[in-house]
Amino acid sequence: MIPKLNIVPFVSVDNMMKLVLSIGVERFLTELAEVVEEDFRRWESFDKTPRLAAHSPEGVIELMPTSDGTAYGFKYVNGHPKNSRTGRQTVAAFGVLADVGNGYPVLLTEMTILTALRTAATSAVAAKHLAPRGARTMAIIGNGAQAEFQALAFKSLLGIDKLRLYDIDASASQKCRRNLAGFGLDVTICGSVEEAVQGAEIVTTVTADKQYATILTDNLVGSGIHINAVGGDCPGKTELHADILRRADIFVEYPPQTRIEGEIQQLAPDHPVTELWQVITGQIPGRRDPRQITLFDSVGFATEDFSALRYVHSKVTGTAFFEELDMVADPDEPRDLFGMLLRAAA
Amino acid sequence: MIPKLNIVPFVSVDNMMKLVLSIGVERFLTELAEVVEEDFRRWESFDKTPRLAAHSPEGVIELMPTSDGTAYGFKYVNGHPKNSRTGRQTVAAFGVLADVGNGYPVLLTEMTILTALRTAATSAVAAKHLAPRGARTMAIIGNGAQAEFQALAFKSLLGIDKLRLYDIDASASQKCRRNLAGFGLDVTICGSVEEAVQGAEIVTTVTADKQYATILTDNLVGSGIHINAVGGDCPGKTELHADILRRADIFVEYPPQTRIEGEIQQLAPDHPVTELWQVITGQIPGRRDPRQITLFDSVGFATEDFSALRYVHSKVTGTAFFEELDMVADPDEPRDLFGMLLRAAA
Repeated sequence: MIPKLNIVPFVSVDNMMKLVLSIGVERFLTELAEVVEEDFRRWESFDKTPRLAAHSPEGVIELMPTSDGTAYGFKYVNGHPKNSRTGRQTVAAFGVLADVGNGYPVLLTEMTILTALRTAATSAVAAKHLAPRGARTMAIIGNGAQAEFQALAFKSLLGIDKLRLYDIDASASQKCRRNLAGFGLDVTICGSVEEAVQGAEIVTTVTADKQYATILTDNLVGSGIHINAVGGDCPGKTELHADILRRADIFVEYPPQTRIEGEIQQLAPDHPVTELWQVITGQIPGRRDPRQITLFDSVGFATEDFSALRYVHSKVTGTAFFEELDMVADPDEPRDLFGMLLRAAA
Repeated sequence: MIPKLNIVPFVSVDNMMKLVLSIGVERFLTELAEVVEEDFRRWESFDKTPRLAAHSPEGVIELMPTSDGTAYGFKYVNGHPKNSRTGRQTVAAFGVLADVGNGYPVLLTEMTILTALRTAATSAVAAKHLAPRGARTMAIIGNGAQAEFQALAFKSLLGIDKLRLYDIDASASQKCRRNLAGFGLDVTICGSVEEAVQGAEIVTTVTADKQYATILTDNLVGSGIHINAVGGDCPGKTELHADILRRADIFVEYPPQTRIEGEIQQLAPDHPVTELWQVITGQIPGRRDPRQITLFDSVGFATEDFSALRYVHSKVTGTAFFEELDMVADPDEPRDLFGMLLRAAA
């Protein structure tokens, strides 16, 4: 993109919003989902490792690297449930794409908005393979920062047109409905989880509390539904009652990470799960039975961020939606780093 | 430093050079060495993990995180020996300091120059405890990007005033001597390693080839010297003949990482080594005997980058040597990320 060796293109929050709006949120989600699915299809070509998490009493800071042997990507992301009290995001992120051949970064980008988009796109990719055919109605339990992105990804990829919202804070549901006005969704705000899940073929749980919670109890889960469990994503943070897990067929991104962080941390370490990439490649069937309960126990994996980074890198090239950061030292002679410093003094 | 929640201060390469020059290279190295030593002294308060390395045939990309429970830091760094052929640095880096309490980054900075400074500062801290008292002469084998930084750190912290340089490429030695003119060092360019080590009380090896090399053979190492082995820092990359290691008392940063990456990868996994922090805290003596060969098997550890990040953060505050990056999404209401996107359209 840029010939100067010292320069790394940087996509700020403002430029990310401009990029998303210039493409259109729904088209962005659809195209991103294609890249996510493409990368799941070549799952075996990725260098995979559970994310490196630094836990503290207040939250977690994580690094999520991966590589396909040609490009390398990583995301920095935090999770601090109390952050909203001080006006901060509970989840904020940025990421880098780099060239494996020379190790130089080729993109630095905000990933707070991008993570919301890639999480929603991944949920929708999983649901394409797991949700009941012809599903039209989705319940969303937890109507915070992720909710609208989930709604639009499921609309764009699956044709969901009815939403049933529930949040312990009714103003969050109202915010969500207000934001989705004009997107062609029929939105109902519900007074309880029980009411929200009525008639829903897909139930998305996306709450933020860092604790063992029971957003969904077993009696609320009827046969045939698909559960998209997004909020339980670190040790000690779950959303579903364990009895639901025992009735469901469970699909995960990367078992070594999900066993620690996902809903299945509540189960025995050898409880059978299916890897999503095996469904996407056709090695293992997704939904087999209209009465089956399918559960996508989503925690977010590095390859999804990699997909998002390479999608943004491809889209931002040739646009004005990035700045040039002087981030890599570029002396006239690579071995003369000190000389560059001396010449800067002159 | 900045009240706006979306803003992260960014120190570019240009601003890093301005910061270093405004402080003065030698004072920067001395102050940074104090911070490095301070952090080694509270070694046990750090969350430590070997760096996360992605190896490829061309090189390596690494993430090096650590935290003291209050601040979190990580460095991204590559190592690509062939990079100089295309005008790139063999080692380029950037890093982030963040607040553990809310997970938000508080500093993004170039670390190519900063890594050279922190590596030299750390070498000098180790040598303060390990080199013969009153040492005045240092040999530097390998006169690339690191050499001048090593020279000035050893001058500032130990009083080294005679340098004996050797590189397989004589122009690198000449570049090094030229750059060091005016710093009060008596510099001799030597025609061989054997000549360079003559009379040197300290021998620094800092070559870049990614292979098992034998820069120093056993017959060249006399009793009483301190070896500062900087260049051998990844699997398959060493500089010293194993016989030297067997005669020396070996000091390392973090054994789980050094056993994989350092000179000691050539030895049995239980070969005795001493951890540098134990010497710095006084738990274990450093040099005990004038005839002893001491070896600092340096590979570079995350806490040293953490020290460098917090030093730069403290020095850059209140200066003009940073830019403001719009890196963290800051909606009016934290849970209304999508609404921020919608409002950006208006």
